[in-house]
Amino acid sequence: MHSEVGNDKRTRIERARDGEMTAEVEQVAQIEKRSPEYVRERVANGRIVILRSRSRDHILPVAVGEGLRTKVNANIGTSPDNESIEDERAKWRAAVDAGADAVMDLSCGGDLTAIRRALLDEVSLPVGTVPIYEAAVNAVGNGKSIVEMTVDEILEPFRRHAEDGVDFFVVHAAVIRESIRYMKVEGRAVKIVSRGGAFMAEWMVHNDAENPLYDHFDEILAIARQYDVTLSIGDAMRPGCLADATDRAQVDELMVQGELADRARSAGVQSMIEGPGHVPIHQIEANMLLEKQLCHGAPFYVLGPLVTDVAPGYDHITSAIGGAVAAAAGADFLCYVTPAEHLCLPTVEDVHAGVIATRLAAHAGDIAKGIPGADEWDNQMAAYRHARNWEQQIAASMDPALAERRRAERPSSVDDACSMCGEFCSMKGVDQYL
Amino acid sequence: MHSEVGNDKRTRIERARDGEMTAEVEQVAQIEKRSPEYVRERVANGRIVILRSRSRDHILPVAVGEGLRTKVNANIGTSPDNESIEDERAKWRAAVDAGADAVMDLSCGGDLTAIRRALLDEVSLPVGTVPIYEAAVNAVGNGKSIVEMTVDEILEPFRRHAEDGVDFFVVHAAVIRESIRYMKVEGRAVKIVSRGGAFMAEWMVHNDAENPLYDHFDEILAIARQYDVTLSIGDAMRPGCLADATDRAQVDELMVQGELADRARSAGVQSMIEGPGHVPIHQIEANMLLEKQLCHGAPFYVLGPLVTDVAPGYDHITSAIGGAVAAAAGADFLCYVTPAEHLCLPTVEDVHAGVIATRLAAHAGDIAKGIPGADEWDNQMAAYRHARNWEQQIAASMDPALAERRRAERPSSVDDACSMCGEFCSMKGVDQYL
Repeated sequence: MHSEVGNDKRTRIERARDGEMTAEVEQVAQIEKRSPEYVRERVANGRIVILRSRSRDHILPVAVGEGLRTKVNANIGTSPDNESIEDERAKWRAAVDAGADAVMDLSCGGDLTAIRRALLDEVSLPVGTVPIYEAAVNAVGNGKSIVEMTVDEILEPFRRHAEDGVDFFVVHAAVIRESIRYMKVEGRAVKIVSRGGAFMAEWMVHNDAENPLYDHFDEILAIARQYDVTLSIGDAMRPGCLADATDRAQVDELMVQGELADRARSAGVQSMIEGPGHVPIHQIEANMLLEKQLCHGAPFYVLGPLVTDVAPGYDHITSAIGGAVAAAAGADFLCYVTPAEHLCLPTVEDVHAGVIATRLAAHAGDIAKGIPGADEWDNQMAAYRHARNWEQQIAASMDPALAERRRAERPSSVDDACSMCGEFCSMKGVDQYL
Repeated sequence: MHSEVGNDKRTRIERARDGEMTAEVEQVAQIEKRSPEYVRERVANGRIVILRSRSRDHILPVAVGEGLRTKVNANIGTSPDNESIEDERAKWRAAVDAGADAVMDLSCGGDLTAIRRALLDEVSLPVGTVPIYEAAVNAVGNGKSIVEMTVDEILEPFRRHAEDGVDFFVVHAAVIRESIRYMKVEGRAVKIVSRGGAFMAEWMVHNDAENPLYDHFDEILAIARQYDVTLSIGDAMRPGCLADATDRAQVDELMVQGELADRARSAGVQSMIEGPGHVPIHQIEANMLLEKQLCHGAPFYVLGPLVTDVAPGYDHITSAIGGAVAAAAGADFLCYVTPAEHLCLPTVEDVHAGVIATRLAAHAGDIAKGIPGADEWDNQMAAYRHARNWEQQIAASMDPALAERRRAERPSSVDDACSMCGEFCSMKGVDQYL
């Protein structure tokens, strides 16, 4: 371990800026079908981030950003109502099995340290966390309210998460008093739906003070620099319904996110920008463009977007619609939404469904934005389909186990067709006559 | 019945052209939140069709076209492997319950007449059929192959379906020898995947003759005129994989579809254009524009579009992505795709899942294209969500039964929150402090 870095205190962004071609960059280039120089240049200028902390060079490097395959994150985590680590273990395994590119632990119940460490031990994907949740849970555990946390109590979990080896963490540093003022003056239907963002806003209002993560951002940067943790610059003002999309509070926070990303770059720290939530289809492309402009090309990590508010139970689909449109328009990293969203804590089955729907969206977006090799998979499937080669169709499916199960449920009486058309299979007939 | 039409032999397109404001047009206007004149003008110029044959004025008029809510069709139908009318009845009931706007019977097995008549009797939504399927099934039943059908045998089911009262039927008249030549010269990965289109192409190649539905289109028009059946001008060249999308064969057929739509308008017959299939996201908007231009604004009825080929088992989601993008860009009518697509005949559960996913897509598209009142539903839901009013959230959901079931599965220990955040609910906290 640490073979490449050794006692070198530089972060990867600094090494890239120094023109160094690391084995890691070469590995990313190979995985992504880009030249090493393409990757190095964008790591240097912050348009690509590699989600791997200094202590985790045993995992494959997963890169996020311009010109690369759109990645998929799965959120797992306990809640006050369900503290079981075993339940979370089953979920992170489901996320890995379904093909997620990264896993975030949003736990708010039980032994948070034990859960995080187990996840880091057992999962060979980038792991992200939201340290402010732990600060809040600790405060409440100590009989205090969230708004009574001290600045030290707020900052402390960031250091511990970095020490534990998390590859990226969320810092809700961009919601400042000005964004809250914008929200109050313009008005908002559902105000703040970001959990970490709500904690910060409540703290700021109660204490009549600026966001401590904004005020102490240099300390966060120092921690991130030391462990080469990537910052996920959180969006407290993520719209929680269509009516709140692309409002002043959201855009104001996005500009602050852009400034923080610049400060991270200057400090040699990688960062990506968190965005969307509920956004109608016709506003998605503009949201992607705004982020790329205002944040100077920093990778965009979006939740959903959910393109309607009215379908609880199906929000993996409303998010797949928005995610595909977002990825096609430049989003680099999609956070999944499961069918449980807005209703309850997700089950293992929800995690599976959420990852698959989001991978679908990411892949459809990659075809649209012309990611190298993205369409090869589809062309392969088309060839198997035309040949009515069922075994290979199933093997090439995004979820082979499901495809196999479904086909077996209702076998066709005609060997080389499906039970939908049977002997009236269009492809069979056309092959015979054309 | 027939109160309004009586012995009037004019079709509704002719009455609209004569400036007549019928009760039907006024009813559509009210449903769609448009002025009666808005609707009448577009029925007259073929930009809106009302799917209701002369003999079915007991059903509510469902209109499809410019400026109206995007409608959703559910296909049901037997196959040679499953001829049960009971199974189909369960499916059409599921389609109605899930909120479909129209049902098409694509049966190819069992007593086709009995199934069609039962559907027409029992369902108060517009019913569509594909008469050429029946011609093919009859031919095979009589020991002939599809390519040996006579022209009379091809035309005969159109008259019988119209007599039975179907509201719209598919006529694959636009695949002509030239489209097939284009396909052969340019090449195609999976050739023809439209079942009716394949029947016609096979017939044409085998008989070295022009498409009989094209050659005898005036006879089809005469039948449609008599019963005021709407034509769904079929697309044999619907791309069956991403690689075949927007190729010469497809665009050539689309131009012929446009000419046939003109001929229908001249004959006083309503028509809509069938389109898409597998189309990558970045080509969808251009496909919608092409249709509106080449077919002079005739309503566009699209399958999917499916934005990737690689996810059998999840094609209701790949189609919801494409359908939402298509609707946002002008598609008027979405044909659902179920999770069974590419694998097997759909079950009742597949029908439900397909209708809901497609309604989601249609609604998301309607918000994007600014259909009057589309966003009211979302704003209502946002208000219930902000108030943490769970009963009303569930009642306002697209699928209330599912939302209720999911929430009950994992109740929260905190009354006015969900089990995802429990006491750390962002909306509760923000309400308290902001």
